[in-house]
Amino acid sequence: MAPETPAEPEPMPAPAVILVQPQLAENVGTTARAMHNCGLGDLRLVEPREDWLGDKAVAAASGADAVLRAARAYPTTAAAVADLHRVLATTARRRDMVKPLTTPRQAAQTLGGVIAAGHRAGVLFGPERAGLGNDDVALADAIIEVPLNPAYRSLNLAQAVLLVGYEWFQAHGGPFDMAPPASDSPPATQADLDNLHHHLFRELEDCGFLRSEEKRPGMKRNIRNIFQRAGLSVQEVRTLHGIVKELRHGRR
Amino acid sequence: MAPETPAEPEPMPAPAVILVQPQLAENVGTTARAMHNCGLGDLRLVEPREDWLGDKAVAAASGADAVLRAARAYPTTAAAVADLHRVLATTARRRDMVKPLTTPRQAAQTLGGVIAAGHRAGVLFGPERAGLGNDDVALADAIIEVPLNPAYRSLNLAQAVLLVGYEWFQAHGGPFDMAPPASDSPPATQADLDNLHHHLFRELEDCGFLRSEEKRPGMKRNIRNIFQRAGLSVQEVRTLHGIVKELRHGRR
Repeated sequence: MAPETPAEPEPMPAPAVILVQPQLAENVGTTARAMHNCGLGDLRLVEPREDWLGDKAVAAASGADAVLRAARAYPTTAAAVADLHRVLATTARRRDMVKPLTTPRQAAQTLGGVIAAGHRAGVLFGPERAGLGNDDVALADAIIEVPLNPAYRSLNLAQAVLLVGYEWFQAHGGPFDMAPPASDSPPATQADLDNLHHHLFRELEDCGFLRSEEKRPGMKRNIRNIFQRAGLSVQEVRTLHGIVKELRHGRR
Repeated sequence: MAPETPAEPEPMPAPAVILVQPQLAENVGTTARAMHNCGLGDLRLVEPREDWLGDKAVAAASGADAVLRAARAYPTTAAAVADLHRVLATTARRRDMVKPLTTPRQAAQTLGGVIAAGHRAGVLFGPERAGLGNDDVALADAIIEVPLNPAYRSLNLAQAVLLVGYEWFQAHGGPFDMAPPASDSPPATQADLDNLHHHLFRELEDCGFLRSEEKRPGMKRNIRNIFQRAGLSVQEVRTLHGIVKELRHGRR
Protein backbone atom coordinates (compact mmCIF):
# COMPACT_ATOMS: atom_id res chain seq x y z
CA MET A 1 0.00 0.00 0.00
CA ALA A 2 1.37 3.39 -0.93
CA PRO A 3 1.84 5.70 2.04
CA GLU A 4 -0.78 8.38 2.27
CA THR A 5 0.51 11.83 1.45
CA PRO A 6 -1.34 14.89 2.68
CA ALA A 7 -3.57 16.27 -0.06
CA GLU A 8 -2.43 19.51 -1.71
CA PRO A 9 -5.00 22.23 -1.16
CA GLU A 10 -7.02 22.43 -4.38
CA PRO A 11 -6.91 25.84 -6.05
CA MET A 12 -10.32 27.51 -6.22
CA PRO A 13 -11.97 26.69 -9.54
CA ALA A 14 -12.13 29.76 -11.77
CA PRO A 15 -14.82 31.11 -14.08
CA ALA A 16 -14.88 30.16 -17.75
CA VAL A 17 -14.07 32.75 -20.43
CA ILE A 18 -16.43 32.48 -23.40
CA LEU A 19 -15.40 34.29 -26.59
CA VAL A 20 -18.36 34.66 -28.93
CA GLN A 21 -17.37 34.62 -32.61
CA PRO A 22 -13.79 35.82 -32.17
CA GLN A 23 -12.62 37.03 -35.57
CA LEU A 24 -8.83 36.87 -35.32
CA ALA A 25 -6.75 33.92 -34.11
CA GLU A 26 -4.23 36.42 -32.77
CA ASN A 27 -6.84 37.82 -30.39
CA VAL A 28 -7.68 34.33 -29.15
CA GLY A 29 -3.96 33.90 -28.46
CA THR A 30 -3.59 37.18 -26.56
CA THR A 31 -6.75 36.28 -24.62
CA ALA A 32 -5.18 32.95 -23.62
CA ARG A 33 -2.13 34.87 -22.43
CA ALA A 34 -4.25 37.26 -20.34
CA MET A 35 -6.19 34.32 -18.89
CA HIS A 36 -3.02 32.50 -17.88
CA ASN A 37 -1.75 35.73 -16.26
CA CYS A 38 -4.85 35.65 -14.08
CA GLY A 39 -4.97 31.92 -13.32
CA LEU A 40 -7.93 31.27 -15.64
CA GLY A 41 -7.84 28.11 -17.76
CA ASP A 42 -11.32 27.35 -19.11
CA LEU A 43 -11.52 28.98 -22.57
CA ARG A 44 -14.65 28.40 -24.67
CA LEU A 45 -14.99 29.58 -28.26
CA VAL A 46 -18.33 30.09 -29.99
CA GLU A 47 -17.98 29.85 -33.78
CA PRO A 48 -14.35 30.96 -33.91
CA ARG A 49 -13.55 32.20 -37.43
CA GLU A 50 -9.90 31.17 -37.46
CA ASP A 51 -7.89 28.23 -36.16
CA TRP A 52 -7.11 28.84 -32.50
CA LEU A 53 -4.29 26.30 -32.59
CA GLY A 54 -2.57 27.81 -35.64
CA ASP A 55 0.79 29.57 -35.61
CA LYS A 56 -0.66 33.07 -35.19
CA ALA A 57 -2.67 32.17 -32.11
CA VAL A 58 0.16 30.20 -30.51
CA ALA A 59 2.67 33.00 -31.13
CA ALA A 60 0.27 35.56 -29.65
CA ALA A 61 -0.31 33.36 -26.60
CA SER A 62 3.38 33.89 -25.83
CA GLY A 63 3.88 30.74 -23.78
CA ALA A 64 0.28 30.36 -22.60
CA ASP A 65 -0.61 27.88 -25.35
CA ALA A 66 -1.73 25.28 -22.81
CA VAL A 67 -4.86 27.42 -22.45
CA LEU A 68 -5.36 27.29 -26.24
CA ARG A 69 -4.92 23.52 -26.37
CA ALA A 70 -7.49 23.07 -23.61
CA ALA A 71 -10.01 25.36 -25.36
CA ARG A 72 -13.26 23.92 -26.71
CA ALA A 73 -15.39 25.20 -29.58
CA TYR A 74 -19.19 25.39 -29.56
CA PRO A 75 -21.74 26.01 -32.32
CA THR A 76 -23.84 28.44 -30.25
CA THR A 77 -23.47 30.64 -27.17
CA ALA A 78 -26.29 28.69 -25.52
CA ALA A 79 -24.30 25.45 -25.96
CA ALA A 80 -21.16 27.08 -24.57
CA VAL A 81 -22.88 28.17 -21.35
CA ALA A 82 -25.24 25.21 -20.96
CA ASP A 83 -23.42 23.71 -17.95
CA LEU A 84 -22.90 27.05 -16.17
CA HIS A 85 -25.03 28.23 -13.25
CA ARG A 86 -24.19 31.90 -13.53
CA VAL A 87 -23.24 33.87 -16.63
CA LEU A 88 -22.11 37.49 -16.86
CA ALA A 89 -21.79 39.43 -20.12
CA THR A 90 -19.26 42.18 -20.84
CA THR A 91 -20.40 45.12 -22.92
CA ALA A 92 -19.00 48.51 -23.79
CA ARG A 93 -22.31 50.04 -24.80
CA ARG A 94 -25.43 50.30 -22.71
CA ARG A 95 -28.29 48.05 -23.74
CA ASP A 96 -31.92 48.77 -23.56
CA MET A 97 -32.29 45.69 -21.40
CA VAL A 98 -33.34 45.40 -17.80
CA LYS A 99 -30.29 43.67 -16.35
CA PRO A 100 -28.23 44.36 -13.28
CA LEU A 101 -25.08 46.32 -14.11
CA THR A 102 -21.84 45.40 -12.37
CA THR A 103 -18.11 46.20 -12.48
CA PRO A 104 -15.20 43.75 -12.82
CA ARG A 105 -14.47 44.28 -9.12
CA GLN A 106 -18.02 43.53 -8.02
CA ALA A 107 -18.22 40.68 -10.54
CA ALA A 108 -15.17 39.02 -8.95
CA GLN A 109 -17.12 38.93 -5.68
CA THR A 110 -20.27 37.60 -7.35
CA LEU A 111 -18.39 34.93 -9.28
CA GLY A 112 -16.43 33.96 -6.19
CA GLY A 113 -19.65 33.43 -4.26
CA VAL A 114 -21.14 31.27 -7.00
CA ILE A 115 -18.01 29.15 -7.32
CA ALA A 116 -17.48 28.85 -3.56
CA ALA A 117 -20.99 27.40 -3.41
CA GLY A 118 -19.80 24.64 -5.75
CA HIS A 119 -21.45 26.05 -8.88
CA ARG A 120 -19.98 26.94 -12.25
CA ALA A 121 -19.74 30.44 -13.68
CA GLY A 122 -18.51 32.14 -16.83
CA VAL A 123 -18.09 35.50 -18.52
CA LEU A 124 -19.12 36.26 -22.13
CA PHE A 125 -17.01 38.46 -24.39
CA GLY A 126 -18.27 39.54 -27.82
CA PRO A 127 -16.62 39.72 -31.23
CA GLU A 128 -13.83 42.30 -31.62
CA ARG A 129 -15.71 45.06 -33.46
CA ALA A 130 -19.37 44.57 -32.77
CA GLY A 131 -19.38 43.30 -29.20
CA LEU A 132 -22.03 40.89 -27.96
CA GLY A 133 -25.35 40.74 -29.76
CA ASN A 134 -28.50 41.27 -27.76
CA ASP A 135 -29.44 37.57 -27.98
CA ASP A 136 -26.18 36.65 -26.31
CA VAL A 137 -26.53 39.35 -23.64
CA ALA A 138 -30.00 37.95 -22.93
CA LEU A 139 -28.35 34.68 -21.80
CA ALA A 140 -26.51 36.51 -19.03
CA ASP A 141 -27.69 37.21 -15.51
CA ALA A 142 -25.93 40.56 -15.34
CA ILE A 143 -23.79 42.91 -17.40
CA ILE A 144 -20.19 43.80 -16.58
CA GLU A 145 -19.13 47.28 -17.56
CA VAL A 146 -15.55 48.38 -16.95
CA PRO A 147 -15.37 51.83 -15.35
CA LEU A 148 -13.04 53.69 -17.74
CA ASN A 149 -12.75 57.13 -19.34
CA PRO A 150 -16.37 57.75 -20.46
CA ALA A 151 -15.03 59.48 -23.59
CA TYR A 152 -12.99 56.43 -24.62
CA ARG A 153 -14.04 53.06 -23.31
CA SER A 154 -13.08 50.83 -26.25
CA LEU A 155 -10.86 47.96 -25.09
CA ASN A 156 -9.45 45.23 -27.25
CA LEU A 157 -10.60 41.70 -26.53
CA ALA A 158 -7.58 40.53 -24.55
CA GLN A 159 -7.56 43.73 -22.49
CA ALA A 160 -11.20 43.29 -21.53
CA VAL A 161 -10.44 39.70 -20.49
CA LEU A 162 -7.34 40.91 -18.62
CA LEU A 163 -9.27 43.46 -16.54
CA VAL A 164 -11.99 40.96 -15.58
CA GLY A 165 -9.36 38.28 -14.88
CA TYR A 166 -7.17 40.72 -12.97
CA GLU A 167 -10.01 41.53 -10.59
CA TRP A 168 -10.72 37.79 -10.22
CA PHE A 169 -7.09 37.19 -9.30
CA GLN A 170 -6.98 40.12 -6.87
CA ALA A 171 -10.02 38.69 -5.06
CA HIS A 172 -9.34 34.95 -5.28
CA GLY A 173 -5.83 34.39 -6.64
CA GLY A 174 -4.58 33.30 -3.29
CA PRO A 175 -1.96 34.95 -1.17
CA PHE A 176 0.47 36.97 -3.25
CA ASP A 177 3.88 37.25 -1.75
CA MET A 178 4.53 40.96 -1.31
CA ALA A 179 7.60 40.46 0.82
CA PRO A 180 10.56 42.42 -0.49
CA PRO A 181 13.26 40.31 -2.09
CA ALA A 182 15.53 38.39 0.22
CA SER A 183 18.48 40.70 0.05
CA ASP A 184 22.08 39.49 0.30
CA SER A 185 22.27 42.03 3.06
CA PRO A 186 19.66 41.94 5.84
CA PRO A 187 18.05 45.16 7.03
CA ALA A 188 20.02 47.17 9.54
CA THR A 189 18.97 47.04 13.20
CA GLN A 190 18.33 50.13 15.24
CA ALA A 191 21.69 49.52 16.91
CA ASP A 192 23.38 49.60 13.48
CA LEU A 193 21.66 52.94 12.81
CA ASP A 194 22.69 54.25 16.25
CA ASN A 195 26.31 53.44 15.50
CA LEU A 196 26.08 55.21 12.16
CA HIS A 197 24.51 58.28 13.72
CA HIS A 198 27.09 58.43 16.52
CA HIS A 199 29.88 58.11 14.01
CA LEU A 200 28.40 60.82 11.78
CA PHE A 201 27.64 63.24 14.64
CA ARG A 202 31.06 62.74 16.18
CA GLU A 203 32.71 63.68 12.94
CA LEU A 204 30.33 66.58 12.32
CA GLU A 205 31.03 68.00 15.78
CA ASP A 206 34.70 67.45 15.26
CA CYS A 207 34.70 69.45 12.04
CA GLY A 208 32.59 72.22 13.52
CA PHE A 209 29.36 71.61 11.60
CA LEU A 210 27.16 71.41 14.71
CA ARG A 211 28.48 74.69 16.08
CA SER A 212 25.31 76.25 17.48
CA GLU A 213 24.51 74.62 20.84
CA GLU A 214 20.95 75.85 20.53
CA LYS A 215 20.21 74.39 17.13
CA ARG A 216 22.17 71.20 17.68
CA PRO A 217 19.37 68.93 19.00
CA GLY A 218 16.97 69.84 16.18
CA MET A 219 19.66 69.49 13.56
CA LYS A 220 20.68 66.10 14.91
CA ARG A 221 17.10 64.93 14.88
CA ASN A 222 16.59 66.05 11.31
CA ILE A 223 19.69 64.28 10.08
CA ARG A 224 18.77 61.16 12.00
CA ASN A 225 15.33 61.18 10.41
CA ILE A 226 16.80 61.10 6.93
CA PHE A 227 18.61 57.82 7.54
CA GLN A 228 15.87 56.43 9.74
CA ARG A 229 13.36 56.72 6.92
CA ALA A 230 15.56 55.10 4.33
CA GLY A 231 15.16 51.50 5.49
CA LEU A 232 18.89 50.85 5.24
CA SER A 233 20.48 47.43 4.92
CA VAL A 234 23.52 46.36 6.92
CA GLN A 235 25.61 46.72 3.76
CA GLU A 236 24.31 50.24 3.13
CA VAL A 237 25.12 51.25 6.72
CA ARG A 238 28.65 49.94 6.17
CA THR A 239 28.90 51.98 2.96
CA LEU A 240 27.75 55.13 4.77
CA HIS A 241 30.34 54.59 7.53
CA GLY A 242 32.93 54.43 4.77
CA ILE A 243 31.64 57.61 3.15
CA VAL A 244 31.73 59.56 6.42
CA LYS A 245 35.24 58.35 7.17
CA GLU A 246 36.50 59.08 3.69
CA LEU A 247 34.95 62.56 3.53
CA ARG A 248 36.55 63.49 6.84
CA HIS A 249 39.88 61.78 6.69
CA GLY A 250 40.54 61.00 3.04
CA ARG A 251 43.11 62.68 0.84
CA ARG A 252 42.76 66.46 0.66
CA MET B 1 -16.59 93.14 -19.45
CA ALA B 2 -17.46 89.54 -20.13
CA PRO B 3 -19.87 88.02 -17.62
CA GLU B 4 -18.21 85.68 -15.19
CA THR B 5 -19.00 82.05 -15.75
CA PRO B 6 -18.61 79.58 -12.93
CA ALA B 7 -15.32 77.67 -13.29
CA GLU B 8 -15.58 74.06 -14.44
CA PRO B 9 -14.16 71.76 -11.79
CA GLU B 10 -10.64 70.89 -12.96
CA PRO B 11 -10.08 67.17 -13.43
CA MET B 12 -7.46 65.78 -11.04
CA PRO B 13 -4.05 65.84 -12.74
CA ALA B 14 -2.88 62.31 -13.49
CA PRO B 15 0.53 60.66 -13.22
CA ALA B 16 2.90 60.60 -16.19
CA VAL B 17 3.63 57.33 -17.99
CA ILE B 18 7.34 57.01 -18.84
CA LEU B 19 8.29 54.33 -21.37
CA VAL B 20 12.02 53.63 -21.20
CA GLN B 21 13.47 52.58 -24.59
CA PRO B 22 10.27 51.24 -26.10
CA GLN B 23 11.31 49.06 -29.04
CA LEU B 24 8.19 48.97 -31.23
CA ALA B 25 6.10 51.91 -32.36
CA GLU B 26 3.06 49.65 -32.24
CA ASN B 27 3.53 49.18 -28.50
CA VAL B 28 3.77 52.93 -27.99
CA GLY B 29 0.45 53.18 -29.85
CA THR B 30 -1.31 50.50 -27.79
CA THR B 31 0.09 52.16 -24.66
CA ALA B 32 -1.44 55.49 -25.75
CA ARG B 33 -4.76 53.69 -26.19
CA ALA B 34 -4.59 52.12 -22.73
CA MET B 35 -3.66 55.51 -21.23
CA HIS B 36 -6.61 57.22 -22.88
CA ASN B 37 -8.89 54.44 -21.59
CA CYS B 38 -7.77 55.39 -18.11
CA GLY B 39 -7.79 59.18 -18.45
CA LEU B 40 -3.98 59.46 -18.54
CA GLY B 41 -2.46 61.92 -21.02
CA ASP B 42 1.18 62.60 -20.10
CA LEU B 43 3.30 60.15 -22.13
CA ARG B 44 7.09 60.43 -21.96
CA LEU B 45 9.44 58.37 -24.11
CA VAL B 46 13.07 57.73 -23.23
CA GLU B 47 15.14 56.91 -26.35
CA PRO B 48 12.23 55.48 -28.36
CA ARG B 49 13.63 53.29 -31.15
CA GLU B 50 10.88 53.94 -33.69
CA ASP B 51 8.79 56.95 -34.72
CA TRP B 52 5.88 57.26 -32.29
CA LEU B 53 3.96 59.41 -34.74
CA GLY B 54 4.30 57.00 -37.68
CA ASP B 55 1.48 55.00 -39.23
CA LYS B 56 2.04 51.90 -37.12
CA ALA B 57 1.84 53.76 -33.84
CA VAL B 58 -1.18 55.82 -34.88
CA ALA B 59 -3.04 52.73 -36.12
CA ALA B 60 -2.31 50.88 -32.88
CA ALA B 61 -3.50 53.87 -30.85
CA SER B 62 -6.91 53.24 -32.36
CA GLY B 63 -8.27 56.75 -31.95
CA ALA B 64 -6.13 57.76 -29.00
CA ASP B 65 -3.50 59.47 -31.16
CA ALA B 66 -3.91 62.76 -29.25
CA VAL B 67 -1.87 61.07 -26.52
CA LEU B 68 0.84 60.24 -29.08
CA ARG B 69 0.92 63.78 -30.44
CA ALA B 70 1.33 65.19 -26.93
CA ALA B 71 4.14 62.75 -26.09
CA ARG B 72 7.67 64.05 -25.49
CA ALA B 73 10.97 62.26 -26.00
CA TYR B 74 13.95 62.43 -23.63
CA PRO B 75 17.56 61.34 -23.98
CA THR B 76 17.72 59.74 -20.51
CA THR B 77 15.36 58.43 -17.84
CA ALA B 78 16.76 60.98 -15.40
CA ALA B 79 15.76 63.78 -17.79
CA ALA B 80 12.28 62.32 -18.25
CA VAL B 81 11.57 62.27 -14.51
CA ALA B 82 13.49 65.43 -13.56
CA ASP B 83 10.37 67.51 -12.83
CA LEU B 84 8.55 64.73 -10.92
CA HIS B 85 8.34 64.58 -7.13
CA ARG B 86 7.50 60.90 -6.89
CA VAL B 87 8.45 58.10 -9.25
CA LEU B 88 7.35 54.46 -9.17
CA ALA B 89 8.89 51.70 -11.29
CA THR B 90 7.08 48.65 -12.64
CA THR B 91 9.00 45.38 -12.71
CA ALA B 92 8.11 41.78 -13.34
CA ARG B 93 11.16 40.33 -11.64
CA ARG B 94 12.31 40.93 -8.11
CA ARG B 95 15.39 43.08 -7.76
CA ASP B 96 18.07 42.72 -5.20
CA MET B 97 17.34 46.29 -4.17
CA VAL B 98 16.00 47.59 -0.92
CA LYS B 99 12.89 49.40 -2.16
CA PRO B 100 9.32 49.39 -0.94
CA LEU B 101 7.16 47.01 -2.97
CA THR B 102 3.64 48.05 -3.88
CA THR B 103 0.72 46.91 -6.04
CA PRO B 104 -1.14 48.91 -8.71
CA ARG B 105 -4.02 49.33 -6.25
CA GLN B 106 -1.82 50.66 -3.46
CA ALA B 107 0.14 52.73 -5.99
CA ALA B 108 -3.07 54.47 -7.08
CA GLN B 109 -3.53 55.62 -3.48
CA THR B 110 0.09 56.72 -3.15
CA LEU B 111 0.05 58.61 -6.45
CA GLY B 112 -3.30 60.19 -5.59
CA GLY B 113 -1.88 61.49 -2.32
CA VAL B 114 1.17 62.97 -4.03
CA ILE B 115 -0.90 64.64 -6.74
CA ALA B 116 -3.58 65.87 -4.34
CA ALA B 117 -0.76 67.63 -2.47
CA GLY B 118 -0.01 69.54 -5.66
CA HIS B 119 3.07 67.51 -6.61
CA ARG B 120 3.88 65.62 -9.81
CA ALA B 121 4.22 61.85 -10.10
CA GLY B 122 5.01 59.28 -12.76
CA VAL B 123 5.39 55.57 -13.38
CA LEU B 124 8.32 53.98 -15.23
CA PHE B 125 7.83 51.06 -17.64
CA GLY B 126 10.82 49.24 -19.15
CA PRO B 127 11.57 47.99 -22.68
CA GLU B 128 9.38 45.17 -23.98
CA ARG B 129 11.73 42.22 -23.49
CA ALA B 130 14.23 43.20 -20.86
CA GLY B 131 12.17 45.37 -18.51
CA LEU B 132 13.72 48.25 -16.60
CA GLY B 133 17.45 48.20 -15.97
CA ASN B 134 18.67 48.52 -12.40
CA ASP B 135 19.90 52.07 -12.97
CA ASP B 136 16.39 53.11 -13.96
CA VAL B 137 14.79 51.28 -11.03
CA ALA B 138 17.23 53.10 -8.76
CA LEU B 139 15.56 56.40 -9.79
CA ALA B 140 12.23 55.23 -8.37
CA ASP B 141 10.95 55.59 -4.83
CA ALA B 142 9.14 52.27 -4.89
CA ILE B 143 8.49 49.28 -7.12
CA ILE B 144 5.07 48.32 -8.45
CA GLU B 145 4.51 44.61 -8.91
CA VAL B 146 1.21 43.40 -10.35
CA PRO B 147 -0.22 40.50 -8.35
CA LEU B 148 -0.76 37.85 -11.04
CA ASN B 149 -0.33 34.11 -11.52
CA PRO B 150 3.13 33.56 -9.99
CA ALA B 151 3.83 30.95 -12.67
CA TYR B 152 3.13 33.41 -15.48
CA ARG B 153 3.48 37.08 -14.78
CA SER B 154 4.73 38.35 -18.15
CA LEU B 155 2.53 41.21 -19.41
CA ASN B 156 3.00 43.12 -22.61
CA LEU B 157 3.79 46.80 -22.30
CA ALA B 158 0.31 48.17 -22.97
CA GLN B 159 -1.26 45.65 -20.59
CA ALA B 160 1.07 46.65 -17.77
CA VAL B 161 0.16 50.30 -18.42
CA LEU B 162 -3.52 49.36 -18.57
CA LEU B 163 -3.53 47.66 -15.18
CA VAL B 164 -1.73 50.54 -13.47
CA GLY B 165 -3.97 53.06 -15.26
CA TYR B 166 -7.11 51.03 -14.51
CA GLU B 167 -6.39 51.17 -10.79
CA TRP B 168 -5.69 54.89 -11.08
CA PHE B 169 -9.06 55.39 -12.76
CA GLN B 170 -10.91 53.22 -10.22
CA ALA B 171 -9.48 55.34 -7.40
CA HIS B 172 -9.53 58.81 -8.98
CA GLY B 173 -11.41 58.67 -12.28
CA GLY B 174 -14.36 60.47 -10.82
CA PRO B 175 -17.88 59.18 -10.40
CA PHE B 176 -18.70 56.47 -12.90
CA ASP B 177 -22.35 56.28 -13.80
CA MET B 178 -23.47 52.77 -12.90
CA ALA B 179 -27.16 53.52 -13.32
CA PRO B 180 -28.88 51.02 -15.56
CA PRO B 181 -29.93 52.34 -18.97
CA ALA B 182 -33.00 54.52 -19.12
CA SER B 183 -35.44 51.94 -20.40
CA ASP B 184 -38.34 52.79 -22.69
CA SER B 185 -40.41 51.03 -20.09
CA PRO B 186 -40.11 52.11 -16.44
CA PRO B 187 -39.81 49.48 -13.71
CA ALA B 188 -43.05 47.94 -12.50
CA THR B 189 -44.47 49.08 -9.18
CA GLN B 190 -45.46 46.65 -6.43
CA ALA B 191 -49.08 47.28 -7.42
CA ASP B 192 -48.29 46.19 -10.98
CA LEU B 193 -46.75 43.00 -9.57
CA ASP B 194 -49.77 42.45 -7.27
CA ASN B 195 -52.07 42.67 -10.26
CA LEU B 196 -49.97 40.17 -12.16
CA HIS B 197 -49.89 37.75 -9.23
CA HIS B 198 -53.65 38.02 -8.68
CA HIS B 199 -54.27 37.39 -12.36
CA LEU B 200 -51.94 34.40 -12.41
CA PHE B 201 -53.23 32.86 -9.17
CA ARG B 202 -56.87 33.35 -10.23
CA GLU B 203 -56.21 31.47 -13.44
CA LEU B 204 -54.16 28.80 -11.68
CA GLU B 205 -56.93 28.18 -9.15
CA ASP B 206 -59.46 28.19 -11.93
CA CYS B 207 -57.61 25.47 -13.83
CA GLY B 208 -57.05 23.39 -10.71
CA PHE B 209 -53.29 23.86 -10.33
CA LEU B 210 -53.48 25.04 -6.70
CA ARG B 211 -55.54 22.06 -5.62
CA SER B 212 -54.01 21.26 -2.22
CA GLU B 213 -55.39 23.75 0.35
CA GLU B 214 -52.50 22.87 2.61
CA LYS B 215 -49.72 23.53 0.15
CA ARG B 216 -51.39 26.52 -1.47
CA PRO B 217 -49.83 29.33 0.62
CA GLY B 218 -46.26 28.04 0.23
CA MET B 219 -46.75 27.44 -3.47
CA LYS B 220 -48.16 30.93 -3.97
CA ARG B 221 -45.26 32.43 -2.12
CA ASN B 222 -42.72 30.51 -4.18
CA ILE B 223 -44.29 31.59 -7.45
CA ARG B 224 -44.54 35.15 -6.29
CA ASN B 225 -40.85 35.15 -5.37
CA ILE B 226 -39.86 34.21 -8.90
CA PHE B 227 -41.41 37.32 -10.40
CA GLN B 228 -40.55 39.49 -7.44
CA ARG B 229 -36.85 38.79 -7.94
CA ALA B 230 -36.88 39.47 -11.65
CA GLY B 231 -37.04 43.27 -11.45
CA LEU B 232 -39.76 43.44 -14.10
CA SER B 233 -40.57 46.49 -16.19
CA VAL B 234 -44.12 47.70 -16.83
CA GLN B 235 -43.86 46.35 -20.36
CA GLU B 236 -42.68 42.95 -19.14
CA VAL B 237 -45.58 42.75 -16.68
CA ARG B 238 -47.93 43.50 -19.57
CA THR B 239 -46.29 40.73 -21.61
CA LEU B 240 -46.71 38.26 -18.73
CA HIS B 241 -50.41 39.16 -18.38
CA GLY B 242 -50.73 38.36 -22.08
CA ILE B 243 -48.94 35.03 -21.69
CA VAL B 244 -51.16 33.95 -18.79
CA LYS B 245 -54.29 34.92 -20.68
CA GLU B 246 -53.18 33.23 -23.87
CA LEU B 247 -52.11 29.98 -22.17
CA ARG B 248 -55.44 29.75 -20.40
CA HIS B 249 -57.88 31.01 -22.98
CA GLY B 250 -56.09 30.80 -26.33
CA ARG B 251 -56.90 28.40 -29.14
CA ARG B 252 -56.75 24.74 -28.06
